[in-house]
Amino acid sequence: MTPDEFRAAGYAAIDWIAEYLESVEERPVASVVVPGALLAALPPAAPEDPEPWSAVLADLDRRIVPGLMHWQHPSFFGYFPANASPPAILGELLSAGLGVQGMLWVTSPACTELEIGVLEWLRVALGLPDRFSAAGPGGAVLQDTASSATLCALLAARDRCAAPLAQQVLYTSTQAHSSVAKAARIAGFAEAQLRLIPVDDTLAMRVDALSEQVAADRAAGRVCSAVCATVGTTSTGAVDPVAQIGRACGDAWLHVDAAWAGSAAICVEHRGLLAGLEHADSFVFNPHKWLLTNFDCSAFFVADRAPMLAALSILPEYLRNAPTASGEVVDFRDWQVPLGRRFRSLKLWFVLRTYGLSGLRAHIRGHIALAAWFAARIAADPRFELAAPVSLALVCFRHAGGDGVNQRLLDALNGSGRLFLTHTQVDGQLALRLAVGGRMTEARHVEAAWAEMVAWADREAVATG
Amino acid sequence: MTPDEFRAAGYAAIDWIAEYLESVEERPVASVVVPGALLAALPPAAPEDPEPWSAVLADLDRRIVPGLMHWQHPSFFGYFPANASPPAILGELLSAGLGVQGMLWVTSPACTELEIGVLEWLRVALGLPDRFSAAGPGGAVLQDTASSATLCALLAARDRCAAPLAQQVLYTSTQAHSSVAKAARIAGFAEAQLRLIPVDDTLAMRVDALSEQVAADRAAGRVCSAVCATVGTTSTGAVDPVAQIGRACGDAWLHVDAAWAGSAAICVEHRGLLAGLEHADSFVFNPHKWLLTNFDCSAFFVADRAPMLAALSILPEYLRNAPTASGEVVDFRDWQVPLGRRFRSLKLWFVLRTYGLSGLRAHIRGHIALAAWFAARIAADPRFELAAPVSLALVCFRHAGGDGVNQRLLDALNGSGRLFLTHTQVDGQLALRLAVGGRMTEARHVEAAWAEMVAWADREAVATG
Repeated sequence: MTPDEFRAAGYAAIDWIAEYLESVEERPVASVVVPGALLAALPPAAPEDPEPWSAVLADLDRRIVPGLMHWQHPSFFGYFPANASPPAILGELLSAGLGVQGMLWVTSPACTELEIGVLEWLRVALGLPDRFSAAGPGGAVLQDTASSATLCALLAARDRCAAPLAQQVLYTSTQAHSSVAKAARIAGFAEAQLRLIPVDDTLAMRVDALSEQVAADRAAGRVCSAVCATVGTTSTGAVDPVAQIGRACGDAWLHVDAAWAGSAAICVEHRGLLAGLEHADSFVFNPHKWLLTNFDCSAFFVADRAPMLAALSILPEYLRNAPTASGEVVDFRDWQVPLGRRFRSLKLWFVLRTYGLSGLRAHIRGHIALAAWFAARIAADPRFELAAPVSLALVCFRHAGGDGVNQRLLDALNGSGRLFLTHTQVDGQLALRLAVGGRMTEARHVEAAWAEMVAWADREAVATG
Repeated sequence: MTPDEFRAAGYAAIDWIAEYLESVEERPVASVVVPGALLAALPPAAPEDPEPWSAVLADLDRRIVPGLMHWQHPSFFGYFPANASPPAILGELLSAGLGVQGMLWVTSPACTELEIGVLEWLRVALGLPDRFSAAGPGGAVLQDTASSATLCALLAARDRCAAPLAQQVLYTSTQAHSSVAKAARIAGFAEAQLRLIPVDDTLAMRVDALSEQVAADRAAGRVCSAVCATVGTTSTGAVDPVAQIGRACGDAWLHVDAAWAGSAAICVEHRGLLAGLEHADSFVFNPHKWLLTNFDCSAFFVADRAPMLAALSILPEYLRNAPTASGEVVDFRDWQVPLGRRFRSLKLWFVLRTYGLSGLRAHIRGHIALAAWFAARIAADPRFELAAPVSLALVCFRHAGGDGVNQRLLDALNGSGRLFLTHTQVDGQLALRLAVGGRMTEARHVEAAWAEMVAWADREAVATG
């Protein structure tokens, strides 16, 4: 591609995205392709000679789009949102266009410093404690996902702990994200070394049970190296009592996973979510979930960067350089598992500036209001019930008819193509999850979702008469 | 941003990138900013209200660009290349515009299937053994970096090994990338459990030394769970004898790191690089280094996916779905550390189609020819010497005047802003590395680099005369 061909192809790509986002609502949210369909349609080998860009873009429509789940569809209510936005898309574009590496400060100082700067903006915006500021012994970094950040927290905890690995134990609740168990396994812990603490009837970690387990482990000569608390569990949005956990876990590393819910703290009325964070050694939340910044963009804060650096730093000769040797700069390669890193802060900077905090708060508040409206409908209809307390913009609910009915309801809703929800288990029973958080989600989308459910329940009532 | 505002801002961003790439040659390759300069220029907090896109784009020029190292500059010869290209940039753009998640097949079937498809294209293009095909027990996945892929290989090896962690040992050469030591540490190995095998005079792993160490460890009751061989070391591009290593290491997991050099295997005359790969359990190379595909894009192949899945799979209720339960689909979240994943295969598909294999081969061959030309100049000038055998497009060399002279030469070259090289140590002495691999690098850039060195050496001779 010559520069002019790039301009033409680039404009076409921008137009394609604009049209996609304008029309995504008309597409079925979930793909209905069968396994192997795209694979079978691909040639068995790469072409020997160049193909024109127009052919590639045509195949995007013909081959790829039918096989997508449309995460940016305004009636996508599954999992947690991964809400993108125009400035974040352009941030990814410019980051790719620059093609710089942020592994060391010296390999692109602006990449590192903008990241430090916007993460401080986020720290202030969320009201996080000063201990997470880079001005002191703490600091923050952008990672790909909360899974990776949680792994880094466990590695820092594991290596900070004086006891050998085999003697260490970790604590989290039965409701914690699967990434905690995965990180523990990666870090070399046996399954039995991760204690899954039971939860109360709000599905929050029971501090009494935690304390008992800590005492039992201590009595048995085991050492608790880390506790992972969750603010907004993936299943139901439950919030662990971080302050009490912090007091109960002594000098273990306290990691707080607020991957989804953390974004809500930019609204002052939701700051309470993060109460107790002054006890935490690390905290992660994902602007790529609910802060209009394209995946991947996970913000990881530590109160003391030294143990993490001790766990992750290796300096081979070919990476040595004068600024690193001076100790005056931050090299983010030591704050993550990979060596190389993209210029991720660019998109976050763009989002924070073009929306402003007021614009981001309006999005969060709008989503929470829509979820509250939906939850009120659930509560008012005797055929439905809330399966867990409403948490911010997440409503877990079920039809009163039992698992079979709920599975059919979920299949019918998702099969319609008009909306998409996912499920979980609460108290051993199926529950449906409606997570509001799309950039383009409006009242009419949530109202339509509710209308679909009512219509299905009406039909069900007739059918089962 | 409204859709029309997005179009206007998007066109402006495309123009910005086109102009950046057209003029990047005129910029100093390495930034001369002092630590903290950008950070000091940023406001202390995010703006409360939205700012116009034009202000943001203006700050990109004013604040960010002066603080970048220009990795796409045609006279960037440092580290290894991270060579971007127009179709890859547009792939990142469209991936961001779609904003889909590829963590499960069901969360966007096309994201998973295109990845399987283009990785098979790469497997065929590089002439990798059939054992890495997804048609059998093997398969391939895109990861962010070779560091992460190497970690996954070690985790699979660690968990496949019947011996407890403390009894296992790992082998790699003294020249292996730092990511091997980092992965071992992450996976819970103590430093002493990673054996650094000495190298021969080409800086390749000595198989006799490996065999001796294996025998000694076996005699001591230790079990070798993994060996990491390197095809194209970061320091000098040395190539370990993979076939002999495979035969020497028994049933240990053999991982081959060809992060940089692997791309050369798309040229049939360089297929010999990968001799012995039929012994390997896993193989990684980075299209983001030398195959015109923007970072991040690391292709990781395994001969048997089962041990990796055993090490990395966790299936919580909220991720269960019918296609996963059917066993008919691939869920790539189980092939990596993070859960979420971007639609990375899109850019690779774009690159393979718009360049064609012939276009990519022409790039690789061009770079190798330029390096050969430069190496011949070094060999012919008595003031300079090769510090290691030339490897593909990497030339390690030094001025005959010793470390002090070479450090001053490196500082002078990089300080000029007209080119950029990095260094390493060979035989305990400083060596300069010239890695050719930029998309826009032509003969005149390498010729200019040589002219700079000659001019510096001339001045040095006069000064010290």
